[in-house]
Amino acid sequence: MIRLYSYWRSSSAWRVRVGLAWKRITHELVLVNLTRDGGEQNQPEFRERNPLGQVPVLEVTMGGQLLRLTQSVAILEYLEERFPERPLLPRGFEDRARVRQLVEIVNSGVQPLQNLSLRRALEGARVDPLPFLQGAIIRGLDALEGVARHTAGRFLVRDGVTLADMYLVPQLYTARRFHVDLRPYATLLRVEGECNALAEFQSAHPNAQPDYDPEA
Amino acid sequence: MIRLYSYWRSSSAWRVRVGLAWKRITHELVLVNLTRDGGEQNQPEFRERNPLGQVPVLEVTMGGQLLRLTQSVAILEYLEERFPERPLLPRGFEDRARVRQLVEIVNSGVQPLQNLSLRRALEGARVDPLPFLQGAIIRGLDALEGVARHTAGRFLVRDGVTLADMYLVPQLYTARRFHVDLRPYATLLRVEGECNALAEFQSAHPNAQPDYDPEA
Repeated sequence: MIRLYSYWRSSSAWRVRVGLAWKRITHELVLVNLTRDGGEQNQPEFRERNPLGQVPVLEVTMGGQLLRLTQSVAILEYLEERFPERPLLPRGFEDRARVRQLVEIVNSGVQPLQNLSLRRALEGARVDPLPFLQGAIIRGLDALEGVARHTAGRFLVRDGVTLADMYLVPQLYTARRFHVDLRPYATLLRVEGECNALAEFQSAHPNAQPDYDPEA
Repeated sequence: MIRLYSYWRSSSAWRVRVGLAWKRITHELVLVNLTRDGGEQNQPEFRERNPLGQVPVLEVTMGGQLLRLTQSVAILEYLEERFPERPLLPRGFEDRARVRQLVEIVNSGVQPLQNLSLRRALEGARVDPLPFLQGAIIRGLDALEGVARHTAGRFLVRDGVTLADMYLVPQLYTARRFHVDLRPYATLLRVEGECNALAEFQSAHPNAQPDYDPEA
């Protein structure tokens, strides 16, 4: 039994939603509202699941044992090893490394600098977070585009979907939310188009989630 | 031929130094001074190696082909797959996931919030970065300690050295640099002591590097 704690607009949960859909893994979705009443992620019940107060959390129950995982990279690497069909990492050492490099450019290079807690800390210090966020996103997308120009085929690393594509699509969504000019990123936009044509990416999109809030 | 671009006090380069030492991989060390003359990482020659202007960069030349990698997670996972002896990931799916979760709590949960570019952005906005940095480090160490209490044996995940330990040791060093009270983290401190007793961790320590600057 697999349960995913998710929020429609969390880019980290979004990555895992694509992974579960890609692997065709039956799972239960538990919705955590990150904005209502100061955030359900801050309530003691959720903090026990993840003291960092972040989605996604994946819970796997097997043989009466509970495995509880946080961090999208750890969750997706676990799914890849545990459910090897429809692989999300290529076979060759070098290509696997290229995928993980692209993943981390987003995961540790950009996403932590755009998340809600940092935005609130900057606002709390009366600093407009927008220029800082845009700068971080642009530096990350420049690096992604620079690597992808050499590695991309139909997707970010050659012609098959990999973990890297699951980090790209939510990152571009966030870039648009913060009004970043995406015209310099021809490779990234082309790959995004390929991803968005796939059912697994469509069903994982924020707007397709049961907790989607069109007025947020 | 393997070449590592490193800086003595970079915690990300430090992780890779431990990995190379653990795997006993012969390599050339190229020193990049991140503070002199506005930072050698900002010079065009280095930016071509990593547009994000960060160490570590790993260059692997084999059969006339150059593989250039950035991002400590991508580099260490590559070394683990390419040089499987003296493994840095356990065998079981669950334990591997636990290691990667601990790795990412540091790698994407804390480290991006304490790095030089964010500190400079806050200082540029005349915001004292220290309380923000300390808050981010404390939240991350709380999460690490909470997980490690359940997973640790002699090291962070059971009794063998894993990638997680390579992320812990530099993180505690940085926590001390920013005057974080480490007394609540009994498990982490005990594991750090075990790591620091090993030659591979000793040779990778900032103070043992050829570019160590005792006055910095």
